[in-house]
Amino acid sequence: MKTLEVIKIGGSIANDEAKLVSFLQNFTRIDPPKILVHGGGDMASELSTRLDIPIKMESGRRITDDPSLEVAVMVYAGLINKRIVAQLQKLSVNALGLSGADLNIIPAHKRNHPEIDFGLVGDIDLEDINRYFIMRLLDEQIVPVFSAITHDNEGQLLNTNADTIAATLAAAMANEYKVKLTYCFGKQGVLIDPEDEDSWIETLDHNQFTKLIEQEIIDEGMIPKLENAFFALREDVERVDLKHSDNLLTTLGTRVIL
Amino acid sequence: MKTLEVIKIGGSIANDEAKLVSFLQNFTRIDPPKILVHGGGDMASELSTRLDIPIKMESGRRITDDPSLEVAVMVYAGLINKRIVAQLQKLSVNALGLSGADLNIIPAHKRNHPEIDFGLVGDIDLEDINRYFIMRLLDEQIVPVFSAITHDNEGQLLNTNADTIAATLAAAMANEYKVKLTYCFGKQGVLIDPEDEDSWIETLDHNQFTKLIEQEIIDEGMIPKLENAFFALREDVERVDLKHSDNLLTTLGTRVIL
Repeated sequence: MKTLEVIKIGGSIANDEAKLVSFLQNFTRIDPPKILVHGGGDMASELSTRLDIPIKMESGRRITDDPSLEVAVMVYAGLINKRIVAQLQKLSVNALGLSGADLNIIPAHKRNHPEIDFGLVGDIDLEDINRYFIMRLLDEQIVPVFSAITHDNEGQLLNTNADTIAATLAAAMANEYKVKLTYCFGKQGVLIDPEDEDSWIETLDHNQFTKLIEQEIIDEGMIPKLENAFFALREDVERVDLKHSDNLLTTLGTRVIL
Repeated sequence: MKTLEVIKIGGSIANDEAKLVSFLQNFTRIDPPKILVHGGGDMASELSTRLDIPIKMESGRRITDDPSLEVAVMVYAGLINKRIVAQLQKLSVNALGLSGADLNIIPAHKRNHPEIDFGLVGDIDLEDINRYFIMRLLDEQIVPVFSAITHDNEGQLLNTNADTIAATLAAAMANEYKVKLTYCFGKQGVLIDPEDEDSWIETLDHNQFTKLIEQEIIDEGMIPKLENAFFALREDVERVDLKHSDNLLTTLGTRVIL
């Protein structure tokens, strides 16, 4: 089986042109087939602030209302996505920017939570991913660049966690390819001491993960990312790594194992 | 030769959900292959106002500076494009939203004007259009939905007139298909009396066009649209019509002939 690399970067990198270009230059060196997934958190929050769109909370959780969704679509599927595509084209990578609505690649459904209505947030069922068009694109040497926007097939766009999109795409392709999933972010890996950048661990299995949560060492933001990592591994993704976005081409970082 | 329909709608329609849905329902009834091109003027201006981005003018012409380009990318390639794609998917049309940077389909270059620097505005050379991927998409029954954003292959996104994109795409495909280009807008056609909606003419040739300009009957906004129409006809596009967006499926409107 061919290897497919699914690489996720946070949105904050897109705000720093030098960092983005340097990351994409490294990304260019990875052999195709490959898929890039990006978030966009910081820029969306900034735009919401500039537009005086209040952040809506319910039971301490952030709610995506209509104005917040519009901002997410503009920033993720618009500005960040097309900036990345234009930079990749400059580097002779034939990138195609996508939301989950395009080609209906990622149908989703509004989150159904017993207590909280999260608003326009989309959850994905693995079996709904449209594998056919992903494979057709990869066969044409196209590099899909996914923003964290999905849709419900009823005309409604939905905001979806970019880590989840990366894990679900990786899992969906695991029958066809040997899939490697890499989460790039601003840390060296999973840190044992959140204050110490050098305290990253080389491998993390699910037992350690549970213990680190009990010991309150892994923070709020990291738990869903790692849950996505374990989900991908359970769904036959070959390898999952968490690493600093500067280290894409190195072996530095935390490898997640079952 | 197969017929290819290239249909352009203004951006204002995307702001009115009922109008947009009704237009797209009609669009769905047109036989594929087909391409949709959309503008986004009003919504971009609104967002610029909300963000306090001043409209930059030079010699009476609007300049696209960095902040204006960001707004255009967010609104055109983001919000409007993905809204249209999600609505088309709901209607079982397999739409793919594109900017000119995606798949490098529309490479452009920064406008080179002897007197005015228009800023981040892209002009297109017909021969640069990437016909191969357009044909591959159409062969897969995919409906490309183009926003009015291009790029310069050096990593810079550019704002490009949506009428020009529609005409250039139509012209680029005229060797492969019998291409029909339709400009949908808020008027019944080319009006002889701008105050009288019923004064539209059934056909307009280039001689009449020149006369109507001399008589100052055709207004500023209409001249470039018609110049694009004549360009397309000279480049072997089979037929060009200007019609009200409500009349997409009717023969009402102005047919442009050489």
